[in-house]
Amino acid sequence: MSATLGTFDLAETTQLWRHAIDARLAAYTDYGSDTPIQLAEAIRHSLLAPGKRLRPMLVLMACEACGYDHEAALPAACAVEMIHTYSLIHDDLPAMDDDDMRRGQPSCHAKYGEATAILAGDALLAQAFEVVATDVQPPEVAARCCGELAKAAGPDQLVGGQQDDLAAQFGEPNLEQLERIHRRKTGAMINVSLRLGGLVAQASEEQLAALDAYGGRLGLAFQIVDDLLDCEGTAENLGKRTGKDADRGKMTFPAVLGLEESRRRAKELVAAAIDAAGRFGPRGAGLAALARYVEERNH
Amino acid sequence: MSATLGTFDLAETTQLWRHAIDARLAAYTDYGSDTPIQLAEAIRHSLLAPGKRLRPMLVLMACEACGYDHEAALPAACAVEMIHTYSLIHDDLPAMDDDDMRRGQPSCHAKYGEATAILAGDALLAQAFEVVATDVQPPEVAARCCGELAKAAGPDQLVGGQQDDLAAQFGEPNLEQLERIHRRKTGAMINVSLRLGGLVAQASEEQLAALDAYGGRLGLAFQIVDDLLDCEGTAENLGKRTGKDADRGKMTFPAVLGLEESRRRAKELVAAAIDAAGRFGPRGAGLAALARYVEERNH
Repeated sequence: MSATLGTFDLAETTQLWRHAIDARLAAYTDYGSDTPIQLAEAIRHSLLAPGKRLRPMLVLMACEACGYDHEAALPAACAVEMIHTYSLIHDDLPAMDDDDMRRGQPSCHAKYGEATAILAGDALLAQAFEVVATDVQPPEVAARCCGELAKAAGPDQLVGGQQDDLAAQFGEPNLEQLERIHRRKTGAMINVSLRLGGLVAQASEEQLAALDAYGGRLGLAFQIVDDLLDCEGTAENLGKRTGKDADRGKMTFPAVLGLEESRRRAKELVAAAIDAAGRFGPRGAGLAALARYVEERNH
Repeated sequence: MSATLGTFDLAETTQLWRHAIDARLAAYTDYGSDTPIQLAEAIRHSLLAPGKRLRPMLVLMACEACGYDHEAALPAACAVEMIHTYSLIHDDLPAMDDDDMRRGQPSCHAKYGEATAILAGDALLAQAFEVVATDVQPPEVAARCCGELAKAAGPDQLVGGQQDDLAAQFGEPNLEQLERIHRRKTGAMINVSLRLGGLVAQASEEQLAALDAYGGRLGLAFQIVDDLLDCEGTAENLGKRTGKDADRGKMTFPAVLGLEESRRRAKELVAAAIDAAGRFGPRGAGLAALARYVEERNH
């Protein structure tokens, strides 16, 4: 990440925070002897692989935007990364998207077999709630965070979006359906990441609404850019195979809107997200810089 | 269930409570339009199939043993059944135990395909935490319940036990390892079911310790009886294929201890569980009757 906005140095901040997130994730998965070694290895293989940590970064930035130090939101940040990683592990399975590369290395099932990959995903999903329930304080906030996180990961959001995404393969391109899928498959977890940061910071309803406005726009922009990168990017840059969406008959924004219109929409959505970040005044600089970075991934 | 103990009519109570549990589970899975129809059907197929509802029954009985009305514990009871069902759906997958029958009907993947079955399990696991976080009151209790439930479902308990169970196939029979697997694979969820009932009833630490003592014994007895039924039962009685443990080279209590010694141990453990239930006085009659029922399944 290299974008800067005003006096906010995104590169420096995200580097520091990424270290903090990675260290905490490593600590959470430093399991005792009751966790089978192969399971622990499979979990750590997927969770600790170098990643952008976009979602946990959003948790921390939202927490700071609402006036708290980012440290308070580290457990919630780790929980969303655990759920994100679980969803990647399960999406990569042979019965789903059948991907053998992820984050620049063999995907979980490619390295540890299907049974262990299924269980590694299951374990991360459960542990995410243990982390939030136990380490978010005070308990009333922990309960609300658990509820919102579970809803975002549940049958009408993350899981429902993935089910519809699988079903939409080789279907007719359809913008409304495509947006509906990604609002749930990608958008819900991005949104709840921001809300968890806000909840930890005891945000007002007005602040939470600003985070929703920012997240709704950023989430869609992120997905459009992700689709563009799959068309245009290289496996070296992305750490996963490219051109797979088209091979698989997946409905994507470039396929539905064309490349140029997809790029224009992403730009427009990022501008709108930056606008929403402005509601936090100077404290929103991190969120604004992160939105700009999402768009710049495509340059 | 037909056992009775003193004036406590287990059959009548469990029938009433089973209706209440089933109605609440049906309500929780009466999804809106954002949940894909096939996913919703797969979830309901597995969750609402006729079952003993042993774990939710334990939640309700523990709640009453600790002095609250069982109604207060219905959300927690539904959550443990959701997690139990998710674990059955995933355990039945081709990459795991590869079972095509469950609860007297086709298993989830046999009917809806692997991808949908994986997602149905994922959705139930997430939703269980939504239910606890949202519907258990007050929020401090909800947070503690989420934390304990997540720990029991996580990498060192339910998931770790399943991983070790898969790895132990065709291994040397070994009582210590077998007990270690089932303490985590079956025992942890039985234990936490009881503790959730206690926590909802604002139980004292002493009451929670009595529930732990009861649960540790009952959980192991239950697993021994389950293994015995797999050797001796019929598919009609169980709603799933029998004799599969042996075909699959699974380590079971009858294989390690022999039939007679397995029966003796189950009896002994049930007696010890009933003893622990006695610490609740007359309010423990339900727990005692349920322990007796677990043993009688084998007659």
